[in-house]
Amino acid sequence: MSDKSYTPPKIWTWEKEDGSQFSKTNRPISGPTHEQALPVGEHDLQLYSMATPNGQKVTIMLEELLEAGEKAADYDAWMIHIGDGDQFSSGFVGVNPNSKIPALMDHSHNPPIRLFESGSILQYLADKFGRFVPEDLIAKTECRNWLFWQVGSAPYLGGGFGHFYNYAPYPMEYPINRFTMETKRQLDVLDKHLSFNEYMAGEEYSIADMAIWPWYGGLVLGKLYDAATFLQVDEYKHLQRWAKQIAERPAVQRGVIVNKTWGDDAQLKERHSKADVTKALKG
Amino acid sequence: MSDKSYTPPKIWTWEKEDGSQFSKTNRPISGPTHEQALPVGEHDLQLYSMATPNGQKVTIMLEELLEAGEKAADYDAWMIHIGDGDQFSSGFVGVNPNSKIPALMDHSHNPPIRLFESGSILQYLADKFGRFVPEDLIAKTECRNWLFWQVGSAPYLGGGFGHFYNYAPYPMEYPINRFTMETKRQLDVLDKHLSFNEYMAGEEYSIADMAIWPWYGGLVLGKLYDAATFLQVDEYKHLQRWAKQIAERPAVQRGVIVNKTWGDDAQLKERHSKADVTKALKG
Repeated sequence: MSDKSYTPPKIWTWEKEDGSQFSKTNRPISGPTHEQALPVGEHDLQLYSMATPNGQKVTIMLEELLEAGEKAADYDAWMIHIGDGDQFSSGFVGVNPNSKIPALMDHSHNPPIRLFESGSILQYLADKFGRFVPEDLIAKTECRNWLFWQVGSAPYLGGGFGHFYNYAPYPMEYPINRFTMETKRQLDVLDKHLSFNEYMAGEEYSIADMAIWPWYGGLVLGKLYDAATFLQVDEYKHLQRWAKQIAERPAVQRGVIVNKTWGDDAQLKERHSKADVTKALKG
Repeated sequence: MSDKSYTPPKIWTWEKEDGSQFSKTNRPISGPTHEQALPVGEHDLQLYSMATPNGQKVTIMLEELLEAGEKAADYDAWMIHIGDGDQFSSGFVGVNPNSKIPALMDHSHNPPIRLFESGSILQYLADKFGRFVPEDLIAKTECRNWLFWQVGSAPYLGGGFGHFYNYAPYPMEYPINRFTMETKRQLDVLDKHLSFNEYMAGEEYSIADMAIWPWYGGLVLGKLYDAATFLQVDEYKHLQRWAKQIAERPAVQRGVIVNKTWGDDAQLKERHSKADVTKALKG
């Protein structure tokens, strides 16, 4: 049974405490809440992030570039703890006025270039190093179709399903049904596509895989939310095959632990050299 | 007061009728529901779309390219009525397995190239014609940051705020508050950025503006949902300035009416030549 007694006011006003897990960091206004500069390390690439799926996309890409021999992809990864409001510092807002991780500065240019949105960062790094986007125009276009698909679809998984299934103050039937239906539809889109494609863009592993894997791979491997049974993720056989195949890549195993300070697996709060990651993985 | 009696089942199952306006077209599975080929007209570019904000992004871009003298940007625009389920035809699913408008085929290549996701289509057309993305690396990166920002943010406006404020079967307090807060935050992000930038990427009008305007411009100009008072859109002065400035562009005025069959303003169900648009605008 549903409560239907609510009528929206004529003009919406901000109630500061809504009971959800993120009510202290969600705001209807943008901009900094406090003055704090960002740290800057020795490498050209300075990453400000956290190991959520959006953060992992970029650390996976950077580790793949290093694995491929691109020494200029070496990077410092600084922790932006979104539960603590680090994304609202004046320094972070200067890089990303939208106050979301990941954000990246490229100091190889003068003045340095600011990057935000994980999809934009992946494309920038692919352009900079000429890697992980197919050269053939059809495959390149497919790669970009699926990269944008991920960026436009995952809000229904993360901000929709994940929020209402895991983080909202109590379970709400209509939103859970709405976002579960869409999440399952998205999983089925991927499953069908991967039934006749090794990777998202075809034969070549690309930034489309790196964007999709932390969200949808994480979900079907049971590493994202506690929803494997609820969503019956074992139904998606081809997506499972692809998710496991990518999980075995050494660069992926390194990338997922950067800017992580929770969980039972390896974790690494900040990354400044290859040795940091190697040490953390060895426990 | 909220109803807290709902407990999610262990395994989610599909209830085919949830009472929302879109319950007949929303499904937890992908793929075609019926066999139907897509029509193909005379131009290289064949657009399959509808004049929602995501559709308008692409028709605005095509009209801007034509306005700039790019004759090869001439296009056929076919109506895909999403309320009627046209996006589930076998032909449409072959172009976009995600069953969302807009989708585009470029027949200037052999085999033709399929494009889906409005952001991917905008970048493809910008590459193809060398227009509407700044050449300078900093401005080009800023353009891409904001393009991806739009794609990742608008689901909270459209699938979140728009759905729960306008389309859900009854008003739900928590989801409306959640998505209203995020929508207002996004409007404030844009307003602050446009307080010291003429366009999203700086001095140059670009595909970032074309992506953002149909959603956020439409919202502050009172043309999207009936929410101008609820959201107090007049507060966002710089965003208003930018939205009005772009609304005055002839190509924008042409683009917004293509694949439109509703409303009081000019409308044009299908577009096959410049004359079609000119005639529809003259009423």
